[in-house]
Amino acid sequence: MAEKKLTGAGLRGQTAGQTALCTVGKSGTGLTYRGYDIHELAKYGTFEEIAWLLFHGELPNSEELANYKKKLQGLRGLPEPLKQCLELIPADAHPMDVMRTGCSMLGNLETETDFSQQQDVTDRLLAAFPSILLYWYRFSHDGVRIETETDDDTIAGHFLHLLHGKKPADNHRRCMDASLILYAEHEFNASTFTARVCASTLSDMHSCVTAAIGSLRGPLHGGANEAAMEMIERFQSPEEAKEAILGMLERKDKIMGFGHAIYQTSDPRNGIIKEWSKVLGEEVGDTVLYPVSEIIEQVMWDEKKLFPNADFFHASAYHFMGIPTKLFTPIFVCSRLTGWASHVMEQRANNRIIRPSAEYIGPEPRSWVGVEER
Amino acid sequence: MAEKKLTGAGLRGQTAGQTALCTVGKSGTGLTYRGYDIHELAKYGTFEEIAWLLFHGELPNSEELANYKKKLQGLRGLPEPLKQCLELIPADAHPMDVMRTGCSMLGNLETETDFSQQQDVTDRLLAAFPSILLYWYRFSHDGVRIETETDDDTIAGHFLHLLHGKKPADNHRRCMDASLILYAEHEFNASTFTARVCASTLSDMHSCVTAAIGSLRGPLHGGANEAAMEMIERFQSPEEAKEAILGMLERKDKIMGFGHAIYQTSDPRNGIIKEWSKVLGEEVGDTVLYPVSEIIEQVMWDEKKLFPNADFFHASAYHFMGIPTKLFTPIFVCSRLTGWASHVMEQRANNRIIRPSAEYIGPEPRSWVGVEER
Repeated sequence: MAEKKLTGAGLRGQTAGQTALCTVGKSGTGLTYRGYDIHELAKYGTFEEIAWLLFHGELPNSEELANYKKKLQGLRGLPEPLKQCLELIPADAHPMDVMRTGCSMLGNLETETDFSQQQDVTDRLLAAFPSILLYWYRFSHDGVRIETETDDDTIAGHFLHLLHGKKPADNHRRCMDASLILYAEHEFNASTFTARVCASTLSDMHSCVTAAIGSLRGPLHGGANEAAMEMIERFQSPEEAKEAILGMLERKDKIMGFGHAIYQTSDPRNGIIKEWSKVLGEEVGDTVLYPVSEIIEQVMWDEKKLFPNADFFHASAYHFMGIPTKLFTPIFVCSRLTGWASHVMEQRANNRIIRPSAEYIGPEPRSWVGVEER
Repeated sequence: MAEKKLTGAGLRGQTAGQTALCTVGKSGTGLTYRGYDIHELAKYGTFEEIAWLLFHGELPNSEELANYKKKLQGLRGLPEPLKQCLELIPADAHPMDVMRTGCSMLGNLETETDFSQQQDVTDRLLAAFPSILLYWYRFSHDGVRIETETDDDTIAGHFLHLLHGKKPADNHRRCMDASLILYAEHEFNASTFTARVCASTLSDMHSCVTAAIGSLRGPLHGGANEAAMEMIERFQSPEEAKEAILGMLERKDKIMGFGHAIYQTSDPRNGIIKEWSKVLGEEVGDTVLYPVSEIIEQVMWDEKKLFPNADFFHASAYHFMGIPTKLFTPIFVCSRLTGWASHVMEQRANNRIIRPSAEYIGPEPRSWVGVEER
């Protein structure tokens, strides 16, 4: 069949479908969800509101929002076989493997048998993901079987409550809320595109989300905030950081958390999380991490005209809330689930199986040779 | 950024990358793996030989093949936590959800931490997949904890041995071998493309294969042989089948197992599995299923010029070997794993993250409205 050859690898710049969910780097609008600018969403919204917006296309009214938060709150408990499965996973497992397995296991126990269930299945995952992650984390690391049902009325609060075993400070809950909003959706990134390819076979929601988690696990996709943290915490002062970064640039080392495949001059999510990092750092009396982060931002701009992306100041912000570095990317999962599921629903509503072609670069036709003659 | 718009949905006919693994429907060659025609591979080869060919690019010599079979034979045992996890999955779970979860769970226990392990991790999955499926199946359905290590020297024999609890007849093993070869690889189909998108983030092998299983689960992709079986076994005679199919065609009902997205006049895999179905049917004294299948093939050609694809005669062939219908698509997994893993290795060897763009069809920029004013 006729094949149209691409000029760029990785389908870069190639339109692979339609979406009404999001614009990334469109002129005049850095990042919008359903037409709303990310700055307004992160400033005025709550994650539950933004999840509703992504799923339904419009912001919820007071009653819808209250009911939705109530619904999600009622879906935090984990079935016994899922808990037992999580207890089988060792403490040194990759937390993204835990999320992938937890999501897949839940698909055996609460299978989506018809697309009419897609919103309920999604809401269940949204409510249960913090429970899955932190049930495993607390059991494998602290040897405790936590109760995953709490009376926190937000996902952000629920997450921090399960992690620390107590209700979070108000600012921590609000910062986590903003973070979940910032990471919720980002058009046809690799994990979302994975979910859409999977959805295009008309597979179930758990399969699509499990597949997306697998893609987000890759170091070229999720995980940049973890890498940024590991770099930042090596330095004791801004001076030491500056010198080290200049050295790294000279050696052409990769510096994580800077630049973006699509944004050209800045990441619209950076300013928001940077401000939160500053506030939380001051609260905990930090004199190192935030100043170190700021000087690195300065050096990268002065030397390379590279800007921090969403991940860079997330590192210190999460750290100030007492979140272990290995849980950074799983938080991304708890958030991006909203984007993945919205894209799955969109794909299902106007589907054609995604089945591209390949350019063949292998051997010419050849004949079988018996094993004795090889 | 500049976007090139596609003419077709689903990336149909669009080159999304390069491969040296396979040609599908190229003129003069129906289906080739590494340049070898599928007819020769299925006639003269064994699945282990073809797996080696896909992974390494050349057929193995006697010593390589013997060592490889030995290696795979030694990798059939399942770690205790994986067995316990499989025991938690209920009998009415979707067997593809079991495969997806088993693969993901193994990723927690035997994580690929470096790409230098990719062949070993793949071989482990290749040897363990029949064990995973049939450990769960026999435990949940028959209440027995089977020993998954057998001395069968082929994957085909191992699979049938675990299923039936005894060594298979020679013809059954050979038919299963041919089937595993036929399903092993098929270019950028949706599940393989899922694996490649996941691989392009540099994620691990378990994530890529888990994601691919999720895509193969979709009714537009895997599962056509199961649907064909369900249709075929409704009929008691060729006459009844002919009348019913004519009625279905008149009502424009979908008839599974016919036609193909890429092949235009025939599926090169059909003749091979059809012959096996005939042989096995005669052996078990079948007078219904094969004749019914044949008449349906005839009617579909006479009325619609539609040909059976690889799935159609697989239904009766598997049935004659005593394989429950719900295990048909998981066998596809045991086979296609070779193609998926080969594509993952190929993607890794020349990678750019697969991140296409979307055409935005959502609302124009709009301003936040407080919840009280909605």
